[in-house]
Amino acid sequence: MSRLDSAIDRLTAQRACLDWAAAAIAGLAGPVLELGLGNGRTYDHLRTLLPTRRIHVFERQVNAHLDCIPPDEDLFLGDFLETLPGAGRVIGAPAALVHADTGTGEKAASVALAAAIVPLLLPVLASGAVLVSDQPMQHPGLVPVPLPHGVKPGRYHIYRNS
Amino acid sequence: MSRLDSAIDRLTAQRACLDWAAAAIAGLAGPVLELGLGNGRTYDHLRTLLPTRRIHVFERQVNAHLDCIPPDEDLFLGDFLETLPGAGRVIGAPAALVHADTGTGEKAASVALAAAIVPLLLPVLASGAVLVSDQPMQHPGLVPVPLPHGVKPGRYHIYRNS
Repeated sequence: MSRLDSAIDRLTAQRACLDWAAAAIAGLAGPVLELGLGNGRTYDHLRTLLPTRRIHVFERQVNAHLDCIPPDEDLFLGDFLETLPGAGRVIGAPAALVHADTGTGEKAASVALAAAIVPLLLPVLASGAVLVSDQPMQHPGLVPVPLPHGVKPGRYHIYRNS
Repeated sequence: MSRLDSAIDRLTAQRACLDWAAAAIAGLAGPVLELGLGNGRTYDHLRTLLPTRRIHVFERQVNAHLDCIPPDEDLFLGDFLETLPGAGRVIGAPAALVHADTGTGEKAASVALAAAIVPLLLPVLASGAVLVSDQPMQHPGLVPVPLPHGVKPGRYHIYRNS
C-alpha cells in the first residue's frame, strides 16, 4: 500500500465515520468538539454536515486554510491536556459529538496522548454522545460502535458514551 | 463540497490517473518524471506501480516524508523552469511518463506555470509518452486522453504525446 493509498484510506474513513456520527446524533442536543484542527478539512466537513451546531475547536497552534479557521470564541488554543479540563465550564453544555484527530504520526506518543485525553473528555460528553477518533480510546463508559461500511477495522474508531 | 470531500476527490483522481498511466506505458521504454514532490505520496505510488523504472524528481525544496525522499542522483533541485531545460541531457533517455503536480493553490499562477512548463517538457517526452497533470496543458503535440472512470472532468488531466 503506497502513501497515496494510505491517505485515501484515511480520509475516506474519516468521512464515513463523521457522516455516520452526524446522523447518529440527530436526536441529541449539544455542541461538537473538534480536537486537532490540522489544515481544517474535517472542521470544514463537520460544519457542512451540522450547520446549526456550534463547533468548539481545540488546537495547540492554528495552521489551517484561511477559510477553515474557527472564530476566536470557538477556539481553545493550547495543549489539549491544559485546555480540556476547563472547557466544559466555558462551553456550558455537554457535547453531542467529539472528533478527536490527535495522532502525531508517532505511534507511542499518540497512544499515550489518547490515554491522557480520555478521562478529560468523559466529563464534557453528553450521555449518548458519539466519539469519533483516529486513536483507540479505552474507558468503561465508552462503548465501541461498529464502523461504517468500507472502513477498515483499526483505521478509525467510533464510541458511544453510555 | 467540503475540503474533506475535495481532498478525497483529488487524491482518488490522482490515483486513478496514475494507475491508468502506469498500465498505458507498459510497452514503452523510458524513465518517469515527477514534477513536484510535495510530501512524496504520489512518488511513493509511482515507485510502487513501476518498481523497475527510474523516477526523476523535480522539486524546488524537498519537504517530503523521510521514506519518500528520492536518492540525490534522481533529484533535480530548484525551479522547474531552470532545471527542466538541461534535464534531458542528464537523464539521457526520453521519458515514458510524466506526472506534473505543479499547482500552488493559486489559480492564475498555476496556469501560468503550467504554460511555461509545457514547451520545456515536450523535448524530454518519448513519442507516445503519457503526461498526467493537475493543471491543463495545451500544446498541439499533446492529445487529451479520456479520463479513467470516476474522475471528474477538470479535476485531473491526461495527455498522450504524439
